[in-house]
Amino acid sequence: MNLVIEHKERLNKASNLMIEHDVSTLLITPGANLRYLTGYKAKNLERLTCLILQENESPKLIVPRLEKLAAIESGINEIDVEIITWDETESAFEKVKRPKNSGRFAVDSNMNSSKLLNFQQLFADSKFTDAGLIMNELRSFKSSYEIDQLLTAGKYIDQVHRAIPSLFQIGDSEIMLAKKIENLIIEAGHESVDFTIVASGKNSASPHHEPGETVIKKGDVLVIDIGGTTPSGYCSDSTRTYVVGECSPEFQSKYEILKEAQELSIQAVSNDFSAEQLDAVSRDHLRKNDLAEYFIHRTGHGIGMETHEEPYIVHGNKNQIKDGNAFSIEPGFYIEGKYGARIEDIVIKNGGKSVNCNNTTKDLVFI
Amino acid sequence: MNLVIEHKERLNKASNLMIEHDVSTLLITPGANLRYLTGYKAKNLERLTCLILQENESPKLIVPRLEKLAAIESGINEIDVEIITWDETESAFEKVKRPKNSGRFAVDSNMNSSKLLNFQQLFADSKFTDAGLIMNELRSFKSSYEIDQLLTAGKYIDQVHRAIPSLFQIGDSEIMLAKKIENLIIEAGHESVDFTIVASGKNSASPHHEPGETVIKKGDVLVIDIGGTTPSGYCSDSTRTYVVGECSPEFQSKYEILKEAQELSIQAVSNDFSAEQLDAVSRDHLRKNDLAEYFIHRTGHGIGMETHEEPYIVHGNKNQIKDGNAFSIEPGFYIEGKYGARIEDIVIKNGGKSVNCNNTTKDLVFI
Repeated sequence: MNLVIEHKERLNKASNLMIEHDVSTLLITPGANLRYLTGYKAKNLERLTCLILQENESPKLIVPRLEKLAAIESGINEIDVEIITWDETESAFEKVKRPKNSGRFAVDSNMNSSKLLNFQQLFADSKFTDAGLIMNELRSFKSSYEIDQLLTAGKYIDQVHRAIPSLFQIGDSEIMLAKKIENLIIEAGHESVDFTIVASGKNSASPHHEPGETVIKKGDVLVIDIGGTTPSGYCSDSTRTYVVGECSPEFQSKYEILKEAQELSIQAVSNDFSAEQLDAVSRDHLRKNDLAEYFIHRTGHGIGMETHEEPYIVHGNKNQIKDGNAFSIEPGFYIEGKYGARIEDIVIKNGGKSVNCNNTTKDLVFI
Repeated sequence: MNLVIEHKERLNKASNLMIEHDVSTLLITPGANLRYLTGYKAKNLERLTCLILQENESPKLIVPRLEKLAAIESGINEIDVEIITWDETESAFEKVKRPKNSGRFAVDSNMNSSKLLNFQQLFADSKFTDAGLIMNELRSFKSSYEIDQLLTAGKYIDQVHRAIPSLFQIGDSEIMLAKKIENLIIEAGHESVDFTIVASGKNSASPHHEPGETVIKKGDVLVIDIGGTTPSGYCSDSTRTYVVGECSPEFQSKYEILKEAQELSIQAVSNDFSAEQLDAVSRDHLRKNDLAEYFIHRTGHGIGMETHEEPYIVHGNKNQIKDGNAFSIEPGFYIEGKYGARIEDIVIKNGGKSVNCNNTTKDLVFI
């Protein structure tokens, strides 16, 4: 895989989308967008590092002088991005040229507000908009290279879920189990751990519970939602629900309905659906079974170089789900004071069908 | 230590500073500012979580419904912050009330630009400014509780530097040594690793070098700049320079000058200096010895709940260094193609004197 060609293509596509969206200047700061366009995994410092695309100008990267070598090491000049350094006593913002035409400035969705406010002051007569309108369009359609990366990430996280029954020991607190899982996330091939939700007993009713000192005990439901980033920068994300020993028939029957809902949603990916139509599939099935009120979040989120990106599978998102979209399907139910459950896979729409990145069992896992 | 009282005091001080700075609405998103004001260590999601301070209103926290339990677990309602949840299909931004008076909106320096652009569109007739003018003033003056936390963080990272000679083995690459250091950063008491710069040989000339596959060899200079965050949320940061076996007399004599420069700067903390006057101390000493051109960054940065925060010890910063300021003193020299060196301590100005958080030797460490 020649990433130089991939990055050059991405930069070209971004330039074309700028024209389409009447954007004169695209400003991209460290984070997933910068890495996506150039391969440069820059630190997000208070000092300005910024990729600048402007009409009839070659791409430029403004970097603090002390980041110059790191930028060069990333190979960014192999894709014809000119590096412009600034010194500690200079204004980095003034290194951005006033654009020749009248179009808008589009700024990285994740640019720190302090930097955006600086740019807005400097270019006070220009309009500013969210670069998401360009970057999300680009990044939500995965190339075949990217699909491979997501499949690899999925294999890594599946390995961790498969090992959880043997990792768990009676007496473990949530945080103790989370630490063991984190080690395995790295051992499985990820470069970093992004999150490790281990929610036991009543805590499983909090979808984003932080693992704490709660000791996991017999009869507990365990919602384990984990993800990491691979060395190539792609994210994994998968949730499975476990039970320590045995659970109530009441919980088990609710879980079976959830499993049906999740499977119906995955089947529906091959339909010609909008994101909100897809969101409705799990929700409708849960509604028929009086569980919809406990499904308090959207069905899913896009994934790629960030764990959460476009397309969001949520009511109100009328965009069609298209080939190349990669996203989670993760219905759940959360009953405060009792328990919760969630099942999450990453799927990619490819050739009109859904390709599943995660392939561990969706049955309740008794440990 | 009653953190409830500490947080209430911080919220009060923020409200007072709002009046002083003609700010009607202070908007704080997940990150160090939110944790500083409320103790809530929230995830920075694409979904809006936002603390709102407005005149004559009690503090409010807007959270996505699925983060509600996590917010409550943080104890945020013990400090009288009202939690307002929003559902997936609602506009979170519209939960912010139009302020009664005409003052400006001050937004978290690290708020994502996509969120700031949303607020600017919704309150199109209001002026927006960087909340740094309130938060930096607050956070740059450390309470006695915070000084204790920084001293503890310093002890943790010193423990790691002291162990490096025994961690290193012939044959280690930068990244192998970095991994061992990362494990020790956690074992020493930190909750997370923030950065691990291991720059060997010619790489030491890049101040922010990412550890790579380069095998560390005899005769190499090693710049090791490491830091982590303690469970209470305070950061450590210390750099020492090591030599594998032996180095050239030329490098050694330059290093001795650097050591003098660093010590002169620390002594100067007790003077009634501005930040830029303090920056000049190391720089002048290096200049007298023909090394100033290789000292390509500022002398230091403030530190607390973020590794880099106010006050910055840099030319152009005319603010006085005052009691309660905590910052790094880290002169270095970087000669491209040859080698580099840096010595970094965290110091706190307290009772007119400098208190040093780091106490390992500043001599070259031969390993």
